[in-house]
Amino acid sequence: MGKCVNHPGRETNFVCMKHNHYLCEECLKCVDPNIHCKFRSSCPIWFMEKRGGKGIDDVPFSKTKEHTVVFQPDNKEVRVPEGATLLYAAQLGDVPLNASCNGKGSCGKCKLILESGTAKSATTPLLTPAEKGKNYVLACQTTVHCDIVVRIPEETLEKKLKIAGMGKAATDRMRGLVTDITPMLAHFSLELSPPTLDDSISDMDRLLRGLSRNGCDVSRMSAGLTVMRELAAAMRDENWKVTASVVKKRFSSEIVGVVPGNGRAGSLGLAIDVGTTSIVVYLVDMKDGTVMAATSSHNRQAACGDDVINRIVCAEKDGVKKLSDMGLATINGLINEAIAGAEIDRDRIDNVVLSGNTTMVHLLLRIEPRHIRREPYVPSVSAFPILKAGSVGLKVNPEAAVFVMPGPAGYVGGDIVSGLIYTGFHREDPLTLFIDVGTNGEIVLGNKDWLMTASCSAGPAFEGGGIRWGMRAEEGAIEKVTIDPETLVPAISVVEDVLPRGICGSGMIDLISEMVRAGIIQQNGKFTRDAGHPRITKDGDEPAYILAFAGETSVDKDILFMESDVENIIRSKGAVYAGFKVLLHQAGLDISMIDRMIITGGFGQYLDLEKAVSIGLLPDIDRRKFKYMGNSSIAGAYMALLSEAHRKEAVEICNRMTYIDFSSNNRFMEEFTSALFIPHTNLEEFPSVKRKFQ
Amino acid sequence: MGKCVNHPGRETNFVCMKHNHYLCEECLKCVDPNIHCKFRSSCPIWFMEKRGGKGIDDVPFSKTKEHTVVFQPDNKEVRVPEGATLLYAAQLGDVPLNASCNGKGSCGKCKLILESGTAKSATTPLLTPAEKGKNYVLACQTTVHCDIVVRIPEETLEKKLKIAGMGKAATDRMRGLVTDITPMLAHFSLELSPPTLDDSISDMDRLLRGLSRNGCDVSRMSAGLTVMRELAAAMRDENWKVTASVVKKRFSSEIVGVVPGNGRAGSLGLAIDVGTTSIVVYLVDMKDGTVMAATSSHNRQAACGDDVINRIVCAEKDGVKKLSDMGLATINGLINEAIAGAEIDRDRIDNVVLSGNTTMVHLLLRIEPRHIRREPYVPSVSAFPILKAGSVGLKVNPEAAVFVMPGPAGYVGGDIVSGLIYTGFHREDPLTLFIDVGTNGEIVLGNKDWLMTASCSAGPAFEGGGIRWGMRAEEGAIEKVTIDPETLVPAISVVEDVLPRGICGSGMIDLISEMVRAGIIQQNGKFTRDAGHPRITKDGDEPAYILAFAGETSVDKDILFMESDVENIIRSKGAVYAGFKVLLHQAGLDISMIDRMIITGGFGQYLDLEKAVSIGLLPDIDRRKFKYMGNSSIAGAYMALLSEAHRKEAVEICNRMTYIDFSSNNRFMEEFTSALFIPHTNLEEFPSVKRKFQ
Repeated sequence: MGKCVNHPGRETNFVCMKHNHYLCEECLKCVDPNIHCKFRSSCPIWFMEKRGGKGIDDVPFSKTKEHTVVFQPDNKEVRVPEGATLLYAAQLGDVPLNASCNGKGSCGKCKLILESGTAKSATTPLLTPAEKGKNYVLACQTTVHCDIVVRIPEETLEKKLKIAGMGKAATDRMRGLVTDITPMLAHFSLELSPPTLDDSISDMDRLLRGLSRNGCDVSRMSAGLTVMRELAAAMRDENWKVTASVVKKRFSSEIVGVVPGNGRAGSLGLAIDVGTTSIVVYLVDMKDGTVMAATSSHNRQAACGDDVINRIVCAEKDGVKKLSDMGLATINGLINEAIAGAEIDRDRIDNVVLSGNTTMVHLLLRIEPRHIRREPYVPSVSAFPILKAGSVGLKVNPEAAVFVMPGPAGYVGGDIVSGLIYTGFHREDPLTLFIDVGTNGEIVLGNKDWLMTASCSAGPAFEGGGIRWGMRAEEGAIEKVTIDPETLVPAISVVEDVLPRGICGSGMIDLISEMVRAGIIQQNGKFTRDAGHPRITKDGDEPAYILAFAGETSVDKDILFMESDVENIIRSKGAVYAGFKVLLHQAGLDISMIDRMIITGGFGQYLDLEKAVSIGLLPDIDRRKFKYMGNSSIAGAYMALLSEAHRKEAVEICNRMTYIDFSSNNRFMEEFTSALFIPHTNLEEFPSVKRKFQ
Repeated sequence: MGKCVNHPGRETNFVCMKHNHYLCEECLKCVDPNIHCKFRSSCPIWFMEKRGGKGIDDVPFSKTKEHTVVFQPDNKEVRVPEGATLLYAAQLGDVPLNASCNGKGSCGKCKLILESGTAKSATTPLLTPAEKGKNYVLACQTTVHCDIVVRIPEETLEKKLKIAGMGKAATDRMRGLVTDITPMLAHFSLELSPPTLDDSISDMDRLLRGLSRNGCDVSRMSAGLTVMRELAAAMRDENWKVTASVVKKRFSSEIVGVVPGNGRAGSLGLAIDVGTTSIVVYLVDMKDGTVMAATSSHNRQAACGDDVINRIVCAEKDGVKKLSDMGLATINGLINEAIAGAEIDRDRIDNVVLSGNTTMVHLLLRIEPRHIRREPYVPSVSAFPILKAGSVGLKVNPEAAVFVMPGPAGYVGGDIVSGLIYTGFHREDPLTLFIDVGTNGEIVLGNKDWLMTASCSAGPAFEGGGIRWGMRAEEGAIEKVTIDPETLVPAISVVEDVLPRGICGSGMIDLISEMVRAGIIQQNGKFTRDAGHPRITKDGDEPAYILAFAGETSVDKDILFMESDVENIIRSKGAVYAGFKVLLHQAGLDISMIDRMIITGGFGQYLDLEKAVSIGLLPDIDRRKFKYMGNSSIAGAYMALLSEAHRKEAVEICNRMTYIDFSSNNRFMEEFTSALFIPHTNLEEFPSVKRKFQ
């Protein structure tokens, strides 16, 4: 018997044969070696034996049994212990799988096809008999007991995300946003006079004098030991020509590097939008603000669930490091892509801005997130000092200055602050209602005089979460729909003009609006038609609309929109609309008083505002007041990257915002219930929609 | 052939068999594995083979031959390669040996007695035939070729240093120096209100609010990632009672730790005087300034030479890390002693002040020192930010705030600034001449309106360097001498009242003065008496005074004072006096205008001012103007440890001082030449001494 290495209070017989430390049974049940073994790389926890017990039979993973899982189409081999799930194998091998519900077995998205070998699967209603016939399994519900080969089917494979404004489009979109470039970390090329007996100040004082003469404010400047140690050689190596790198922090400045000569290549920066669903990276030339490369991909944390709550649950269970590593792996992969494209040295990247919601930022920086999901929903940190890229884990110049967008509350984060910086309404007179529709749904109301904010828990439906064929706005997503009311035949637009394999947020808004218009569903979201029509079918008892027949898709299956999907969308849009109402009420205002409504978020280019009003997502106001501005988090991050004024503005915005919590707000619950209707139970609030119904 | 791991430009055949890296011949010749092997602990560099060459014959150390050296009286065993010197063996085994000349074979101090086995020794004139008969060898001139046992003779053993004001005396001396205690790192015990929906600011903001309500200025305060990561748990673990540790830096404040509860044990501090010769550590209770323990020992760097020049040369040859490690080993040893005595947890030590000359500080912090010894004698750094003990290498709380005394010039360092803080004359009206007699000899002239400073290269004679039987003011050192002019028999006082084994600075001043008075030497330092008198002898051609006969000593040898020793002392005192004259001249003043003269340094309690004047070390002014103030570096460090005002004062003093360089000053050379006489070539400058001669 010995004490568990992770839970010193527990006695256990299980011993890691390699490192001779004890692990309790709970630890053994956890499949993540990252958490329970202190020597991850060399000692997966399943190399266990039970000391003084009956044997190793009751150890969840045998030390002797290990199997190979091959993931097709990429032929990726992963060794896993007997009894591990395929989802675990995918996570271990860094095989991107969509697993919205974080392995609970409730979303049915982590489908794989078993190509050879056998595996044990739990029974699941989420696979159709046809799928079962084709050897489909759910990765999270299937365990490995021999060497097997699995294939990731078309509908599970993560495809290139479509982000509005990538590449050249990003450059065009960002052009002119910042004119006066003031980086955090700047390089100063100096030609110093050599010391003489009459001028024998120390090397550091000589450097500071040189910086001062070059217009640098040295009054609050210092340097760390590393720089002090390299200073003498650096200053003399090229005859008193040096380049000093200085980070201007909030309260002081730090010389972070001194190199000989004046030939340093120009500074590059990264603006990073760390979204719950997807991450976007802009590689920026700090000289003129040109976007040299723009890359994006899904946040690998998605393997731990679609929304921030699931991510926090996962961090509590497996440790925040796991989530941090997943986020960093995503970002570092995107950085690699960006620098490969631009053919640059990663050491030139020395300015970084991170913009994300409060949970994403906590996870990425390995700060405890657990209290964000518990009343009173308190984050650990809301404002951050300038950090060093090396300590954050970003694979750029380790001394790179990292500005983290501050966030005013647990559910209103730095991404929203970025949104304000970009949209700029908080600097202007007009009363503005701002909504960012992402995995959550954050609202800001106000103008240059005051700002109120709230989060309305819209859920991930608009990003595909909880929707049978829901997906992100990536290749193969249906993004526009019209339905012929006579034939019920849909006309669809698909991202990248390929065969469809699912439907994204803008497509869903269109679809619901069209389904009501065509009379397929009632205003309460219930199907009116029975299964007689060729476009209407049933899955068990649940009616569904056939958006595309199997033959018209890339997945060789009917793409359905279920009654429960409609219900989910109604709940999401209802939460957003209720949020508007309550926030306005808190401010003593009503919808008619809004001068401007700004919508941002991950819808891509295509958000049909008219249809968004018609389903009751957006209020029924003068359409000229609407302004759709795309991904504002990345744009605000870009602006803060280039401009100290915008970095200061971020802090000011945070301090100005009054956060209203809806979680225990009765009015919010009432408004939400009233909004669970298309467009609303009170049609008077949607006069233009009412007219159409009449 | 391969590239040397240390000098990539060099091709070599020598390979470390253990790690398979190449080392060039220069690297192989260096006996310090610390410098040339990247895997010091497991791969001493002598495990070498020559690839593609003739064999291993021309490798300085064979891989196959290694021998054991046992050092008596402590029975310390050290394994060394064939051919290594005994000095190297002592350094490797951390056996303290006095090696003033850093292994050049010129000081003759590193004597050992070969007790068993044989060794190869170079011929040396520095051992007497009698010594050779007793198997004495010089450690630096003797190489090891078989297992041997050596004994450190009484005269080579380093004994406990006598420092004025240790222990209780230190407490008494420091009492009342600082009344308003303002540490760098302070702990704030807070009881915070738990968050509610109406008060849901982040944990960090709650902490800052708590600090602010406790009178802490939070306007420029931030925290690093480590604190952010621990914050949530720390705040909740004891129900919102926390203790925050805050470091007040020059330009901002940093929260360096947050722990649950309010039961933190009180802060302790260290004041450290890093002298070239000896290092002194005070362990201080930051609550009330009590000195809980005072420890001191020789700076282990002494194995690399007596003075700063030799230390820099050694750092250039073997790398500055070696010297840094030696200094840190000394300090960490003293810290261990202090905390063992006071029975406290080292983690409580969270405030540290380092005071030392510019070279000592550079070496300790591993900052390049080489330009300090080359015209125009420029240090790398003269002012330091608050550092962390962990990054410095001090074995205390790794987050402990370390203040390094700034130093105005390469040869006037932080120890002198400490001296000013302690003596305080720079705050007062009287024109003051300040001299610190240590291994160098730094002078400051001025008052509250202006300050000039210079270093006069007095050399290490007063600390025993370059003097045949010279030693530090430690056990067995002759510290007072009077000579009967009739019999020439001396009356001596010895530190700790034991049998003498050498003579320290205050003893030498006495001795020279007495030798002149008794007519043993002339005013030019030459011996008048010939060898006929029982107290006068000759060593070769050189006359010497027998200060103690072998039978009266603990070393069983005559303790001699040589003519060349007299010459060395005359040069040292001449340099100091010339320094006074030139600095006064630069200021347009002369000696008579001095209102006060402050003498500090390592003389211990006993400096006979009258005799110091009589040999021409101190000017012949009204004796009431003299003030002897002991070790002022440790006292100033103590004051800066406790008080922010004194830390700020240090920076101000540095900025106020005008440094005068004597190295190329013709007037200094003239004054120096004139002072090479006892007391001076111009007796008019020493009227009271002149009267005695008349």
